[in-house]
Amino acid sequence: MNQLLEQIVEDCRGYTSLGKVATYIPQLAVADPEKVGIYVVSHTGEEHYAGDCFDRFTMQSIIKPVILLLALLDSGADKVRALVGVEATGKPFDAFNYSDQALTGAHINPMINTGAIALCTLIRGENYEERFTRLLELTRTLAGTQAPEVDRAVYLSEKKTGSKNRALVYMLKAYGMIDDPAEELLDCYFKACSILISCEELANIANIFAHHGIDPRTGKALFPKEYARYVNATLATCGMYDGSGEFALHVGFPAKSGVGGGIMGVIPNKMGIAVFAPALDKRGNSVAGVRMLSQLSQALDLSIY
Amino acid sequence: MNQLLEQIVEDCRGYTSLGKVATYIPQLAVADPEKVGIYVVSHTGEEHYAGDCFDRFTMQSIIKPVILLLALLDSGADKVRALVGVEATGKPFDAFNYSDQALTGAHINPMINTGAIALCTLIRGENYEERFTRLLELTRTLAGTQAPEVDRAVYLSEKKTGSKNRALVYMLKAYGMIDDPAEELLDCYFKACSILISCEELANIANIFAHHGIDPRTGKALFPKEYARYVNATLATCGMYDGSGEFALHVGFPAKSGVGGGIMGVIPNKMGIAVFAPALDKRGNSVAGVRMLSQLSQALDLSIY
Amino acid sequence: MNQLLEQIVEDCRGYTSLGKVATYIPQLAVADPEKVGIYVVSHTGEEHYAGDCFDRFTMQSIIKPVILLLALLDSGADKVRALVGVEATGKPFDAFNYSDQALTGAHINPMINTGAIALCTLIRGENYEERFTRLLELTRTLAGTQAPEVDRAVYLSEKKTGSKNRALVYMLKAYGMIDDPAEELLDCYFKACSILISCEELANIANIFAHHGIDPRTGKALFPKEYARYVNATLATCGMYDGSGEFALHVGFPAKSGVGGGIMGVIPNKMGIAVFAPALDKRGNSVAGVRMLSQLSQALDLSIY
Amino acid sequence: MNQLLEQIVEDCRGYTSLGKVATYIPQLAVADPEKVGIYVVSHTGEEHYAGDCFDRFTMQSIIKPVILLLALLDSGADKVRALVGVEATGKPFDAFNYSDQALTGAHINPMINTGAIALCTLIRGENYEERFTRLLELTRTLAGTQAPEVDRAVYLSEKKTGSKNRALVYMLKAYGMIDDPAEELLDCYFKACSILISCEELANIANIFAHHGIDPRTGKALFPKEYARYVNATLATCGMYDGSGEFALHVGFPAKSGVGGGIMGVIPNKMGIAVFAPALDKRGNSVAGVRMLSQLSQALDLSIY
Repeated sequence: MNQLLEQIVEDCRGYTSLGKVATYIPQLAVADPEKVGIYVVSHTGEEHYAGDCFDRFTMQSIIKPVILLLALLDSGADKVRALVGVEATGKPFDAFNYSDQALTGAHINPMINTGAIALCTLIRGENYEERFTRLLELTRTLAGTQAPEVDRAVYLSEKKTGSKNRALVYMLKAYGMIDDPAEELLDCYFKACSILISCEELANIANIFAHHGIDPRTGKALFPKEYARYVNATLATCGMYDGSGEFALHVGFPAKSGVGGGIMGVIPNKMGIAVFAPALDKRGNSVAGVRMLSQLSQALDLSIY
Repeated sequence: MNQLLEQIVEDCRGYTSLGKVATYIPQLAVADPEKVGIYVVSHTGEEHYAGDCFDRFTMQSIIKPVILLLALLDSGADKVRALVGVEATGKPFDAFNYSDQALTGAHINPMINTGAIALCTLIRGENYEERFTRLLELTRTLAGTQAPEVDRAVYLSEKKTGSKNRALVYMLKAYGMIDDPAEELLDCYFKACSILISCEELANIANIFAHHGIDPRTGKALFPKEYARYVNATLATCGMYDGSGEFALHVGFPAKSGVGGGIMGVIPNKMGIAVFAPALDKRGNSVAGVRMLSQLSQALDLSIY
Repeated sequence: MNQLLEQIVEDCRGYTSLGKVATYIPQLAVADPEKVGIYVVSHTGEEHYAGDCFDRFTMQSIIKPVILLLALLDSGADKVRALVGVEATGKPFDAFNYSDQALTGAHINPMINTGAIALCTLIRGENYEERFTRLLELTRTLAGTQAPEVDRAVYLSEKKTGSKNRALVYMLKAYGMIDDPAEELLDCYFKACSILISCEELANIANIFAHHGIDPRTGKALFPKEYARYVNATLATCGMYDGSGEFALHVGFPAKSGVGGGIMGVIPNKMGIAVFAPALDKRGNSVAGVRMLSQLSQALDLSIY
Repeated sequence: MNQLLEQIVEDCRGYTSLGKVATYIPQLAVADPEKVGIYVVSHTGEEHYAGDCFDRFTMQSIIKPVILLLALLDSGADKVRALVGVEATGKPFDAFNYSDQALTGAHINPMINTGAIALCTLIRGENYEERFTRLLELTRTLAGTQAPEVDRAVYLSEKKTGSKNRALVYMLKAYGMIDDPAEELLDCYFKACSILISCEELANIANIFAHHGIDPRTGKALFPKEYARYVNATLATCGMYDGSGEFALHVGFPAKSGVGGGIMGVIPNKMGIAVFAPALDKRGNSVAGVRMLSQLSQALDLSIY
């Protein structure tokens, strides 16, 4: 297995040159585009890895499934579903995707920015500082380590340049979907996107979703199976932005990518996978990352379809 | 198992009153909205059923995965992929879903009308009569019986009232995506939608997709595994129109519905399921059908997520 | 005045090289891109001209105001208005984006293809042959000559390649806005677009609209003032496709262009103008034509704003 | 003339019950829906009026033409045109639908919120306080009185509830169209919308636009004719929101409405008109106001088309 992963990293390293690191957040532009790492945690807790898998990178959109999970835990599936729909949008991750006069939850999805931001309002907390703290805590619990923390430079960079996310928040407010103070909500979201993670930690998070809430390292149930299904199903249809259909075809399992270059792959009942390679394709997915997952899926017949 | 299915049919019969039979094709409006049937074919070929599962109904959109399969078999995945994309649209089954000036394959999907119609051009044949004949033959082979044939009244009704599909065909032509004669192509598509099927036959078709091209009844490989994956992945993200995300959440396996009231469910490596109940919800999915699949999925833990 | 027109033709001839003749209808592609003509008919019936103003070209979209007029004459303003709106946008002042779920008359306009085609159904006649004949007669009456007739090669070329217009017709039918046989309706529309006209004739048509239905040559009232206002107002807001706003700014009077290279300009209470130059900009408006109208408007202070 | 105006006010008073005062800004909801006033200033400076024409109301969108004028005066037509387009639609003549992938100046217009806000960045000033002061000064100059000032309650109400405008500003920033600090810019815009005006003052402003920059009261040229044409042309195509086409048809001259209930009408070379009646139709135009302008246009044959 380790040999297979080494081989995959070697084969896919060349693909990094086909992508570009994210630049819309200045601080992301400093990432090294040649980094490539992979980490796999199996059912029995065995861990395998290759490449730059201990490097840390910001989660960016990969925090979205964790936000969805925490909103489910704190407010229940009914409230979550009432606020944010589950249909694929066929739109890029930051699209203004709204019909005529009305914006309703049916038009948005937890895996696009608008949906993830809206779901932050369903996290419990006195204020957004507390909500964020609870989100970070959950991330650490799932990762199995206290290591995840905010990359302050990235957070400040997002905060400074996040006009599109600000527009989305004010639109949610304009349509009466949320009522909370915009800047505090955005602050929580920007911090959430800036949480640093490694492939090792991310693979452990994925593995818990794969085992429907049970941490295979401890056997402990961290959240209900139905919430794992909610998250995994959403990842399957929308986790890879407007490349989700393509990914289902060529890779074939729930996954979530982030513009930091990471992708988390969830193989239900089997394993959790994390890859990292900051050079992105035009949809915002890691080029070498998708390629590695595709090769691994072929090699181990991981498609769930 | 038979008892479970009887129970499910009984439980879900009441849901028929929440929907309405399709009326946009006059001939579909004569369906009996109180019919309810289910049929399950398992891995080992065991068959279980309940309700009106031997009634015949027109396949309508359920023919789309068969069209996709035949296009793959006749022209290969590259040509199919070049013509029609795989992203979810988040649009209803008959949406005009086109940006500004350009319509490209990336905007369409094999499971919406535009995509399925376009894929008919990739079926081999001297003319559209022959192409349709080959499609009907494949349907019969998958169903394991010569029974499937065209419901002439429905076909003529579709042909007469199919303005939206005509508009879609001419748009495909206007954007240079297809070049074939519109009426012959439409004729092929209208006939394809009008093929009569029973739950029993449909469950067998589903079971072959579930077993990646191998017919569990005979052990014979009817088509390559990669094409089964192509179809199943597409069903998972787009098979239930703009209710696909919801369906992934509550039911959790690849499926395709048709406005004739049927739904085909594919549980990879496990079983094929077909349900029938002509009363539809506003997205065009069978109300009691979705409900039956949901209950069965809960009872047998069939979600793949 | 003749000297002014000669000067303008000379000045603007160079602009022809900045455009391209229409090619989407093969027969239009044979036009000579270097032709440039202008014709002005004043209040008192004085006529002035320069360049290739006696060349004949097909009216294309310039027939739209005549279709609108005939629909008004035959069915009245209420029916016209009920079928087809008059907004350039059909969107609220603060819309983000646009729904594609419904098509109603409010979304279309007599000066775009969909609207003009729909309005053909409000022309009186036993069949579309007769409706077209009546439209041709009206065109001849306004032009003051029997010369206008169908360019058969262009008509057949449009008929053969008109997939986009076919798509529009079937969409109108799909949304229940029209009920007439598609091909007959299209035939009428394609013939209407293929009517040959000269700048001289077109300027006379424009002059009648400018004088609110009264032909200054004869003093005879050909149609009610309110219908002239209906047409002129629609030209002012939508006559130059998506260049209408720009045209209002730089030229400043109601006008209608066609992809045959002609533009008809209506200066209320003052004059009718026609220009011809087949090389088009990317919006489908004659490059040199717009330029000539702009210079003439400056020289004679013709803007109505 | 005074008698005519009295008659019109009387006739149209009943229409107020067909509309509703704006409520999206809480402070606007307190307006008296039964108010009706009209004021006309003619070429020679004669003034006629009837009804509640000395009441003061906030300009709201009627400030947009003044913003456009000041941007033109301060930055020139080229810069204005480069930032914000002039099309009502921005769509080609045969577009099916609309892309949401890019936002450029071509998609916006000075008479919609996005465009007017963007144009504030082209007003000269050290900061937005100064820019607003210059805008207020220009308004006073055009009105011929120092009376116009900010309604502080309305301004604060807009500032507090203006989520949609905030969304628009951040969208402009996200697409790189503007670079200025969002809240200061919005503050300027909210204050601008909250300037109090009377029909008398507004009619004088309209009259100056009608006379292409020359104040008929003093004979003094306040701005170049080409800028008046720019503003008037834009009003003609887009001044009445998505009721602009309808207004061109039934009334027939450049006009600008605001959700405060006012409408300014510009009859080039002839007169300036202002009406006031706070009950609005669903497009945001004063019901009785449009009706009064329509009757006056009929009575005096004011249509420019």
